[in-house]
Amino acid sequence: MDLGMPNAWIEIEGGVTSPAGFQAGAVNCGIRSKKPDVALLLSDRDAALAGAFTSNRLAAAPVALCRERVARGQARAIIVNSGNANAATGAQGIVDAERMAALTADALGLSAASVCVCSTGTIGVTLPMARLESGIRAVVSQLSSDGGPAAARAIMTTDLVPKEIALELTIEGKPVRIGGMAKGSGMIDPNLATMLAYLTTDAAVESAALQACLLEAVQDSFNRITVDGDESTNDTVLFMANGAAGNSPLQPGHAEWDCFVQAVREVCGRLARMIVKDGEGATKYVTVTVQGGASDGEARQAARAIANSLLVKTSWYGCDPNWGRVYDVVGYCGVSVDPNALEIKLDDHFAVRNGTVSTATDLKSLQAVLRQDEFTLLVDLHVGDGTDTVYTCDCSPEYVRINSEYTT
Amino acid sequence: MDLGMPNAWIEIEGGVTSPAGFQAGAVNCGIRSKKPDVALLLSDRDAALAGAFTSNRLAAAPVALCRERVARGQARAIIVNSGNANAATGAQGIVDAERMAALTADALGLSAASVCVCSTGTIGVTLPMARLESGIRAVVSQLSSDGGPAAARAIMTTDLVPKEIALELTIEGKPVRIGGMAKGSGMIDPNLATMLAYLTTDAAVESAALQACLLEAVQDSFNRITVDGDESTNDTVLFMANGAAGNSPLQPGHAEWDCFVQAVREVCGRLARMIVKDGEGATKYVTVTVQGGASDGEARQAARAIANSLLVKTSWYGCDPNWGRVYDVVGYCGVSVDPNALEIKLDDHFAVRNGTVSTATDLKSLQAVLRQDEFTLLVDLHVGDGTDTVYTCDCSPEYVRINSEYTT
Repeated sequence: MDLGMPNAWIEIEGGVTSPAGFQAGAVNCGIRSKKPDVALLLSDRDAALAGAFTSNRLAAAPVALCRERVARGQARAIIVNSGNANAATGAQGIVDAERMAALTADALGLSAASVCVCSTGTIGVTLPMARLESGIRAVVSQLSSDGGPAAARAIMTTDLVPKEIALELTIEGKPVRIGGMAKGSGMIDPNLATMLAYLTTDAAVESAALQACLLEAVQDSFNRITVDGDESTNDTVLFMANGAAGNSPLQPGHAEWDCFVQAVREVCGRLARMIVKDGEGATKYVTVTVQGGASDGEARQAARAIANSLLVKTSWYGCDPNWGRVYDVVGYCGVSVDPNALEIKLDDHFAVRNGTVSTATDLKSLQAVLRQDEFTLLVDLHVGDGTDTVYTCDCSPEYVRINSEYTT
Repeated sequence: MDLGMPNAWIEIEGGVTSPAGFQAGAVNCGIRSKKPDVALLLSDRDAALAGAFTSNRLAAAPVALCRERVARGQARAIIVNSGNANAATGAQGIVDAERMAALTADALGLSAASVCVCSTGTIGVTLPMARLESGIRAVVSQLSSDGGPAAARAIMTTDLVPKEIALELTIEGKPVRIGGMAKGSGMIDPNLATMLAYLTTDAAVESAALQACLLEAVQDSFNRITVDGDESTNDTVLFMANGAAGNSPLQPGHAEWDCFVQAVREVCGRLARMIVKDGEGATKYVTVTVQGGASDGEARQAARAIANSLLVKTSWYGCDPNWGRVYDVVGYCGVSVDPNALEIKLDDHFAVRNGTVSTATDLKSLQAVLRQDEFTLLVDLHVGDGTDTVYTCDCSPEYVRINSEYTT
């Protein structure tokens, strides 16, 4: 995620309500026991809207609704519930998602077409609309320009920590802010995840440019993380730009466009990293880089296979320098590899060189790498110039405990 | 695995030494602490040899050696060590595998070309040849026609139980036996697994027919099981037919060929089932059948994705009727599905019908299914006639514990 460009932004404390003109709020409406389960994010004026969504063929009802809103390119509000994904809910699911938009629009005096809807949680249970109706009425009264942290908590499911970030940069001499929040800690895989992320900015951004900028940032952040290889039905990233900063609309060609893009990439990268670090039961953050692939696609295929191998992930948990499992994955994942040149490194230490145990292999050094909270696994296939990187975590018994007790 | 044909065989107690003319033995040579780690299987006469191997591109040295032996179609002996896979060991690995064959051949007065070699265990450590040399000398003196059970124990790594079976059938009025043993409980995935299996028969079988029969049986047994989705560098199935029963060589067209084939399928099916049941940390045996696929290949793709989903496997462990995770996998695994017709059933109970929660969905019944040691998950994609079945197990915290502590 490091572009080697100057960091023309500074990090500030905050989240989605840090940019001017945004308010947020949260309440509990009874979908989840005691925890907040309804969040509302509002822009005080029309905002350009961009979005990225799950590629799951059984995408949930609210994803279909948000896709329509993003096609329009404009929105005012986003209503989110946690605890229930409104997925696999058939025609009723669509009716309910549209009703959530209508209820929110009514309460705010907006048109339903300007309200986005997201749901996350259990799949296959119809939304408890009576509870949501009262929740939506209640959350409007909670709206505040300090409401970002409350909203970040209300979108959580198995997350242990809320995930927020805000950056400030200068555009045309004016201070501009970008805020973000995200949820997700399981069912996380490249091509999005059981993951919701919301970005806000008070910069004015041309609508098509906002969409292009978001897709590029998502590709190098949320699409590069994996916790367990499962891609959800509900993954959604939405980005609202309301122009409250008063700059002329940003787009390619604007002198500060690249700076803005880099800041958006940073926000997405940081939120993605927070998701992996909060991976269910995770104790380690691992960067898996594959180079020397026949193509970038093959490098990606290998990096994903390694990052999702249960045997590899459990060995990381055990701080076990069992690089043989990485070697095994490289062999079965379907990519071209030079068996006599293959290299596997943990941070700066070779495990495999010239396709076999390196004379420089030092198990104690490898184990010391694995005992760190963060490390890099580098695999060089020695076939071509293809390269890719995936960010992931280890798999602990706690992951299994969490996921064997989710609905019941 | 049920072909709907009459079972013309009976099961008898025994394993690879049950057929006439086979001896086996086992010793500890110090690769594993105290546990037997060298097994030898010997036919008293030339036997037709068939084999099936891992598709891993980084196949271990002994796999290359066995492929050569199978190409010749004949063998006398198989030497196996556990505790060290002789994989990722470069040129030295090949030298060592050939030396194992030569040492065994010398001790038995055979040609090295008639000795197969297998290794299973840790990847990337050069074989301790001095220990193996003394082990091979010692195991020859342990050969016995009662040695099957000892050999079945010596090939184990993380297996909790040895895996043996023997069947008796009648060919041309003569009693014929087929015996088998296998190891494997982790790094198990379709297209073979970290899995070794050995079949013996005293039937005379034409060499090409033996190979065809074995491949067909492997396809419907070892290639349909998955524990963790990882396919090993060492998977090998070998089948020796020594003709001690005195029948005319079996081949297609022989009146009892189909009966023999069915018995071989039964042996492979039973051994494959034993491997899944002994899956590391497994508490449940699950049959995943996908029908209604656009093709058999798509049905297989979906069945494998479901069987390897960590979220699905952990929900089984928790007896959690979280069919939403199955729904999610169906959506992301890349196969065609009719979202409005999709069905998901646990044994005879619908979880999803017409693409959504069935009015007949009864969580208590679903939970009762999951509380069983064995159950069937049926998914109907409602797109075409493609169908496939995979056999798998759940994922428990114990799996993670076992695999985070393997080499260290």
